[in-house]
Amino acid sequence: MYMAENTPTIYQGLDGVYITESKICKVDGTLGRLYYRGYSIDVLAQNSSFEEVSYLLLYGKLPNKMELESFENELNSERDIPDGVKNIIREMAKKADPMETLRTAVSALVISDAEVKDNSPAANLRKMVKLISKISTIVAQIGRLRAGKDFIPPAKNIGHVENFLYMLNGKAADAKLVKFINTMFILQAEHSSNASTFATLVTGSTLADIYSAVTSGISALKGPLHGGADEEALRMMLAIGNPDNTETYINEALAGKQKIMGFGHRVYKAYDPRAKVLKTWLVDIDKTSNGKVKDLIQIALRAEKLMVERLGQSHGIWPNVDFFTGPLYTWAGIPIELFTPLFAAARISGWCAHMLEYWEHNKLFRPLEYYTGPINLDYVPLDKR
Amino acid sequence: MYMAENTPTIYQGLDGVYITESKICKVDGTLGRLYYRGYSIDVLAQNSSFEEVSYLLLYGKLPNKMELESFENELNSERDIPDGVKNIIREMAKKADPMETLRTAVSALVISDAEVKDNSPAANLRKMVKLISKISTIVAQIGRLRAGKDFIPPAKNIGHVENFLYMLNGKAADAKLVKFINTMFILQAEHSSNASTFATLVTGSTLADIYSAVTSGISALKGPLHGGADEEALRMMLAIGNPDNTETYINEALAGKQKIMGFGHRVYKAYDPRAKVLKTWLVDIDKTSNGKVKDLIQIALRAEKLMVERLGQSHGIWPNVDFFTGPLYTWAGIPIELFTPLFAAARISGWCAHMLEYWEHNKLFRPLEYYTGPINLDYVPLDKR
Repeated sequence: MYMAENTPTIYQGLDGVYITESKICKVDGTLGRLYYRGYSIDVLAQNSSFEEVSYLLLYGKLPNKMELESFENELNSERDIPDGVKNIIREMAKKADPMETLRTAVSALVISDAEVKDNSPAANLRKMVKLISKISTIVAQIGRLRAGKDFIPPAKNIGHVENFLYMLNGKAADAKLVKFINTMFILQAEHSSNASTFATLVTGSTLADIYSAVTSGISALKGPLHGGADEEALRMMLAIGNPDNTETYINEALAGKQKIMGFGHRVYKAYDPRAKVLKTWLVDIDKTSNGKVKDLIQIALRAEKLMVERLGQSHGIWPNVDFFTGPLYTWAGIPIELFTPLFAAARISGWCAHMLEYWEHNKLFRPLEYYTGPINLDYVPLDKR
Repeated sequence: MYMAENTPTIYQGLDGVYITESKICKVDGTLGRLYYRGYSIDVLAQNSSFEEVSYLLLYGKLPNKMELESFENELNSERDIPDGVKNIIREMAKKADPMETLRTAVSALVISDAEVKDNSPAANLRKMVKLISKISTIVAQIGRLRAGKDFIPPAKNIGHVENFLYMLNGKAADAKLVKFINTMFILQAEHSSNASTFATLVTGSTLADIYSAVTSGISALKGPLHGGADEEALRMMLAIGNPDNTETYINEALAGKQKIMGFGHRVYKAYDPRAKVLKTWLVDIDKTSNGKVKDLIQIALRAEKLMVERLGQSHGIWPNVDFFTGPLYTWAGIPIELFTPLFAAARISGWCAHMLEYWEHNKLFRPLEYYTGPINLDYVPLDKR
């Protein structure tokens, strides 16, 4: 028996559906602007550190000098991860995708936190600081093990990103590299209710703790429709190989109606403001680079120029943040398989800020499905089927 | 600057919002009926095994004898878990909540699956069979380690639930216990787009693999607003202690407007059909039990009678599935901290069926937030704040 009812509106993908009010992030897709807590992303990328932006996202205001120092000290004191989590990372790092190891290790972090079940805002803030700090340690350690090296304990008295690069590479990073990775972490720290943040909220809305919520966020970020576009864009550039092949490749791809990764965005119908920041970096690095990095930068810049000319104003298809990260990460010495883990190490601040805000007026996410199957079927015993 | 716009409709908790069509589960909250693939839950609970119901959920039809045997054999052959995952369970079991260990272990299961990234329906079905089989092994092993015992390898040639009980208890279970746990697994296998299934879909909609999606499901199920209500109901019964205290306790709770766990449901405005099945079990077990189990059953039955008289017809508040599980699980020798892990070991079939169905017409979940904060704030340099 099919159920005769009028079909209700079905919000596939929840496109256009507002799930909550928020004071964290404004994405202006029409004008191509992005604000964290009211501050324009380009200004933050230019002037701030990842710690400052994380504070801004969590607390809703820029810290003064004393507040920032105190926040940095908290983060600094939480860099170590427990031996149990190290063992789990060692168990998995070479057998699994880095995102899978990261997901598992973050899920395991609870073993070192006696406050897991305390859902007060103060306890949650303490747990969030731990997560923001430790997730970078986990990513760096996974990177080291994947590269056949062993774990380096975190350094003290240097910044969050500087320490991340120190752990990853086993040596001090120069100031320009530290500035660039800070910029990347800032650009990727937050983007309203994207799929991973939404997965975080859905899980957290059951009043599961922040470790559960963030484990969901990481699980969602792993998906190629969400966290993997920068990898795909870089693979395309690597396939192009020589800058002189760029125009032919793009022409053929457009003629064949192939999707070109790193262009177009569900929200931005203008130039992604994060991509603008990265383009400035690309133009700058181009001046002093050579070899493979130079080739990739040239491919990216030429492809961007062609695509903008053909599809920008006319079709509203513009480069997004994922397009430029590949050549820049290659310059920065970040292997392709760590792109999404780094994204997680940055987005953790946005996930936490959204969860903290949502818990202020929590409501369990419990949508409906429209049932289109039969009901009251006769149960035929097994031996008569 | 506050943004002057008309506030759009905000679907807090996505209450009443349809997210997809589905042929898996019909919850009739008005009449108090529940159908899996068109079959009434009480008929399935009476006649089927968990394997048969899992097949029904995944394939959309009841298996014939050959299909069921083949499915059982597949499940049977997947009961072992890799050594790496055993090590991770050992690392965590005593330091973390069983749901946290379960979440971490399921996240780690990828290390034994070379097909993780293959998103074809055939590969997904193979991965789902692995998950359904192995999650019970993981839950049993966690239970054993928590009880100070060591892991027992799965048995061969016995049913899924029988083997689960064998692994958990280290001895063969009697037929009545096997039937009861099969009933519980069937009742908990599926319930449309509840929070954990929704978390699974949100994560899977990024085209992250089934391990990522299910890790999100487990993360959400951990939340006290979702998976923990049966624990809370049992804690209340334990607090009541003596059946003769039941009436006073309920009266005082109602007078003080305390929420009584296990009553009322966001969807059911009638007697939860799953609770009806369990009540039959309770009445049956009552006849042959004694001591603490008898007391708990009597408390549950008396509380149910009182609550139904006072709030049933008049307020539409009826017992839900969570109310009766505590006394029954106590009879079955399941410790309270394993209630939610068992729920996960059952719901895995529902999570997988929904994911398989959603991927047929996948669309990324990407809702909106309504931004109510300022924009274009002036960035004051750190030393001037």
